[in-house]
Amino acid sequence: MKELAKELNVSVATVSKAMRDSHEISEQTKKKVLEAAARLNYTLNPYASSLRKRQSKTIALVLPEVADNFFSLAINGIQSVAERKGYHVLIYLSHEKFLNEVSILSECSSGRVDGVLISISSETTSAEHILKLQRENIPIVFFDREFEGLRIARVVTNDFECGYNAAIHLINNGCTNPVFLSISTSLGICNKRAEGFKAALLEMKAGDIENAVVVCKGTSGDEYSQIKKLLTGKNRPDGIVASVERLAMTVYLMSHETGISIPNQLKVVVFSTLETAPILNPPLTTITQPAFEIGKAAAELLFKGIEKKGYNLADEYVELPSVLTERMSSRNS
Amino acid sequence: MKELAKELNVSVATVSKAMRDSHEISEQTKKKVLEAAARLNYTLNPYASSLRKRQSKTIALVLPEVADNFFSLAINGIQSVAERKGYHVLIYLSHEKFLNEVSILSECSSGRVDGVLISISSETTSAEHILKLQRENIPIVFFDREFEGLRIARVVTNDFECGYNAAIHLINNGCTNPVFLSISTSLGICNKRAEGFKAALLEMKAGDIENAVVVCKGTSGDEYSQIKKLLTGKNRPDGIVASVERLAMTVYLMSHETGISIPNQLKVVVFSTLETAPILNPPLTTITQPAFEIGKAAAELLFKGIEKKGYNLADEYVELPSVLTERMSSRNS
Repeated sequence: MKELAKELNVSVATVSKAMRDSHEISEQTKKKVLEAAARLNYTLNPYASSLRKRQSKTIALVLPEVADNFFSLAINGIQSVAERKGYHVLIYLSHEKFLNEVSILSECSSGRVDGVLISISSETTSAEHILKLQRENIPIVFFDREFEGLRIARVVTNDFECGYNAAIHLINNGCTNPVFLSISTSLGICNKRAEGFKAALLEMKAGDIENAVVVCKGTSGDEYSQIKKLLTGKNRPDGIVASVERLAMTVYLMSHETGISIPNQLKVVVFSTLETAPILNPPLTTITQPAFEIGKAAAELLFKGIEKKGYNLADEYVELPSVLTERMSSRNS
Repeated sequence: MKELAKELNVSVATVSKAMRDSHEISEQTKKKVLEAAARLNYTLNPYASSLRKRQSKTIALVLPEVADNFFSLAINGIQSVAERKGYHVLIYLSHEKFLNEVSILSECSSGRVDGVLISISSETTSAEHILKLQRENIPIVFFDREFEGLRIARVVTNDFECGYNAAIHLINNGCTNPVFLSISTSLGICNKRAEGFKAALLEMKAGDIENAVVVCKGTSGDEYSQIKKLLTGKNRPDGIVASVERLAMTVYLMSHETGISIPNQLKVVVFSTLETAPILNPPLTTITQPAFEIGKAAAELLFKGIEKKGYNLADEYVELPSVLTERMSSRNS
């Protein structure tokens, strides 16, 4: 575009506007620009200009799923900011699949969006697809689930501390063999929660640290059979901290089926924003992430990156604390 | 584009390909086309051609919210079809606001998507924004929440029958004053459920038909105070059918707060796909819509409309039945 502007002795802005058929530019100038563009084999990429001008007025939100209440609340926090800014939010679901995530981000890199908010899938162990976006100068903010070790802005919660507090809570309430149920060995938030959990066991000289973290992988059917094996096998735990909502639901359903009594035989704590926690049987102890606020803070950071020239977005880091709310499911009976 | 083709004595396809910088067209021809386009003041609309060629490989999914489990399951059904077809799904949330819905559909009409799946907001009482899309030949399918009386394809459930069955179920279990909690007076699915509910009352000579339908409107705070007034006031109901999930959750939370005993003093049935229904206190009777299947069927219809030339999409109608699952919350004690 610079070349074109030089050739025609007009500004780059004029060329850009002419290519976008702006009403600010005379028909004569447009004609001149288009002819020169053709002469110089200028490639008409409709997205390229919107990319450079950041005019799609759209941000992408990339999530593993929406069935988890954390994500529906985070979406509301994000939309509250986007609406104020007059932006559209496109929601893409990776369904916890790495390949879906790669394909979604390549879609984003065509200039369709002005920025990307992402919570990575539990399968994601490589970051090239994310770094590629960043190299194209598209502002990116991780929320909740970050890919660790990158220089990319992120809004997270105090996962290590929460894992630690959950274990202390169970031990103080009489558990001698608590376990942590994870969904991934690669996901930073799961690992931090698990690390905090193990640190508490070590400090309290409690439980079996070697077997304290159980990773449920695969489909929900697989999760079901893994949890069933754990709860009905030898050395079955007397306390569980579930890293995500759906694992706690499976534990509850199974305890109802098999007659395991919560909290008498098994105490349960879950990382969840589930609104039904107080009306479950029994009411469920939760570590509640500030989901709406995490979404809102991530969107606010992203818009700083979109709107402020030269803003150092990549090094931003926001940590919002979660809260443990004790209910019947973990009470000392 | 026809004019351009005539002027240059080439085919319309050649002009179109040249404008899209296709590798099939020589640089010389491209130059000729671009110069002629400039001469004839041809407007370069990047979306127009993708609209006509239906090449965005993207469909839009317009929803009121994602916090409701019905919609998260329907999304999965829709994505299962879209993935097989190699299409992206853009999820837009109206947050139950008519104006958001209008703005979202105007975005869709710029040719960004090849088709639209929509479940309308509870505020939507005018359909001009939907008809405008249809006039632009963009395939549209309603799922679950349709705008009644339009010639537009739709996939729904047997709402009237389910409202009727829910009332009969409550009356048979001893309720003398059941009410139906609605969220809208304009939403077809709510009205059909309410009509079925009232038809059963009339047939069974039960309850107070005049006051049998209570519409909770406004924010969730408003819903809360309206339900509290209903449950603690004079002539309070002994049975409730909630038209959506969140209303039943509010009824449960309030009964826990105020000490109203479910099912002894109040029996509860809800239209919901809530997976936690069996583990609530008490387990909750649900009318479960086949959410995944509704999403899947709607997406399959939409792709017929996108892929088959001359396919009469508008008159398609699919009804998938819901199932009443009795649990403790409505049992005759």
